[in-house]
Amino acid sequence: AKTIDLAVLAGDGIGPEVVAEAKKALFAATKNDEVSFELTEYPLGTDHWLATGETLSDETLAKIKTHDAILFGAIGAAPGDTRIPSGLIERELLLKLRFSLDHCVNLRPSKTYPGVATPLASDEPIDFIVVREGTEGPYVGNGGVIREGTPHEIATEVSINTAHGVHRVVKDAFERAQARPRKKLTLVHKHNVLVNAGHLWRRTVEAVAKDYLDVTWNYLHVDAAMIFMTTDPQRFDVIVTDNLFGDIITDLAAAVTGGIGFAASGNINIDGTAPSMFEPVHGSAPDIAGQGKADPTAAILSASLLLDHLGLSEAAKRIENAVLADMNARAENPAPRSTQEIGDAIVTAMGH
Amino acid sequence: AKTIDLAVLAGDGIGPEVVAEAKKALFAATKNDEVSFELTEYPLGTDHWLATGETLSDETLAKIKTHDAILFGAIGAAPGDTRIPSGLIERELLLKLRFSLDHCVNLRPSKTYPGVATPLASDEPIDFIVVREGTEGPYVGNGGVIREGTPHEIATEVSINTAHGVHRVVKDAFERAQARPRKKLTLVHKHNVLVNAGHLWRRTVEAVAKDYLDVTWNYLHVDAAMIFMTTDPQRFDVIVTDNLFGDIITDLAAAVTGGIGFAASGNINIDGTAPSMFEPVHGSAPDIAGQGKADPTAAILSASLLLDHLGLSEAAKRIENAVLADMNARAENPAPRSTQEIGDAIVTAMGH
Ligand SMILES: CC(C)[C@H](C(=O)O)[C@@H](O)C(=O)O
Ligand SMILES: CC(C)[C@H](C(=O)O)[C@@H](O)C(=O)O
Repeated sequence: AKTIDLAVLAGDGIGPEVVAEAKKALFAATKNDEVSFELTEYPLGTDHWLATGETLSDETLAKIKTHDAILFGAIGAAPGDTRIPSGLIERELLLKLRFSLDHCVNLRPSKTYPGVATPLASDEPIDFIVVREGTEGPYVGNGGVIREGTPHEIATEVSINTAHGVHRVVKDAFERAQARPRKKLTLVHKHNVLVNAGHLWRRTVEAVAKDYLDVTWNYLHVDAAMIFMTTDPQRFDVIVTDNLFGDIITDLAAAVTGGIGFAASGNINIDGTAPSMFEPVHGSAPDIAGQGKADPTAAILSASLLLDHLGLSEAAKRIENAVLADMNARAENPAPRSTQEIGDAIVTAMGH
Repeated sequence: AKTIDLAVLAGDGIGPEVVAEAKKALFAATKNDEVSFELTEYPLGTDHWLATGETLSDETLAKIKTHDAILFGAIGAAPGDTRIPSGLIERELLLKLRFSLDHCVNLRPSKTYPGVATPLASDEPIDFIVVREGTEGPYVGNGGVIREGTPHEIATEVSINTAHGVHRVVKDAFERAQARPRKKLTLVHKHNVLVNAGHLWRRTVEAVAKDYLDVTWNYLHVDAAMIFMTTDPQRFDVIVTDNLFGDIITDLAAAVTGGIGFAASGNINIDGTAPSMFEPVHGSAPDIAGQGKADPTAAILSASLLLDHLGLSEAAKRIENAVLADMNARAENPAPRSTQEIGDAIVTAMGH
């Protein structure tokens, strides 16, 4: 039997609760397959930093690199917790992982489920994926401050975009578009203002499109994309965009499809030089942590993306179908359930 | 009688059609007041550039500077028109005006009107304003490209943020929040990732807040703001944010309140060193230009903001009330009307 060697980073807040359910789903989905799991838990996050001063050391990173894939929960301190410098864990743990492990494709599917209420008046089904660039753009941490705290302070942020970085993501997005029935790709940027980066993205899409003649593509400014996301999200099939626009769009996409509780994501290393990482789009939600109130569906769907990435597409589909069955069950009986009850129901829907 | 000396830049596409109605509304609203208007039309925009090569020359800019205020329509070529380099008119005319005339506050009210359908399921009224910074951030046009068109291309965009620029906008936003019944301010940024700029914004809000103790304020990451904008837009009162986030948020805000056809804006020079400029948030919509299909309401509401800015708050209110009356009339009789019919109805609602 093949052994899959997973790193588990449950993280802070509701992270551990939802990851526990994701693990159950992983096991259930592969029970009858020729695979078994070996799990190594890395207790990284806010508490670990407070206790040890480590966000993510080079040694730990080297260990994490040896695994086949990473199951990630959520990180981030409570907003009022002044012991933790704002954004420290996010940058030095989560973003460091994405950058060090070359997670260039941040894959975020957005889909409505039957019976799940959305904030939109229309109940037309929505089904698209966002291919968000994950290793460059305004996220590179380039920039600085002079004269801090004075009336003459100047603070800069530099967005760095490379042909290498944009090309591989655009190509990946075209591949995914080609594999989908509608075969449509939308580039979202703001090239009328961000001329340098915008034109690199635009030219790259134009060039790569020549190898995917069966994919139709169009361009939307990010502000116009906001409008369509609420008035006509059905128009989207595959969206490809930069790191920051992708951050913004995918939260909106999660909202219009029924909530961040169902939004899964994969941080993909596309050439296998390091493990890919799968995480719910939601954060650590410290306000409801430890109360069994978190919906584990996003984490469970992230486990499905993980299986699919490792070539276990049937097992991945089993989770997806079980989630779908659970969504239908919710629609009939919308009584609130605990994190564990939802996880159990999804496992049961897999026939276990 | 006081004479108000206006520059009119109707622009491209539907710009001239909607500006024609905005002028009618201006005249009607001030008919019985001790004011008259002197209008100078500047035929700038795509056609002018094609004919003369001028986007906005220093001479024209100097002339525009002498007016009391600017009424602006919309600019931008048709997406397929390859004669016009993408974004050229936007940057060299619209953004050049905002930057040269020091329009640091880009004021964008968002409000639902009775009877106007929105894409949201909830019909709870929405009423907030966005104070978008207008003269810095990622819009400064700083950055560059090396090795263009090669596999080694690198393209950068530099967001520049100054204490001066952030402070004046934040102060303006607190002033506006204090003048509103709910007295709430929300800073939207992404300071967990954009550390330098984000912390300048955050520290500035913390400092200025001390002078507005009756205003309660909070902070939201831009991605979280996306979610609330669709699930709970009622929570917002005054939003203050940077140039790019403001661009993104205000289109979403326009969408969730019923459409870009009603979204007005003011580009405000807060210390009167140059004229302020009032424009609908929508673009030039070349696809429907010249057909009388454009809704002039956003341009007419922009004229109301112009009057208010010039101290003619009663006249401004007259336009607002007439628009409200027209919205109610639409709700009862939603038959489509032409641009001119809508303009006429709003003028009639002012009793003329
Ligand atoms: C936590 C934060 C750094 C992160 C991001 O901005 O990418 C999050 O918002 C996300 O979308 O995964
Ligand atoms: C046309 C464009 C340059 C402009 C902007 O990005 O500011 C527009 O989208 C707006 O919001 O006024």
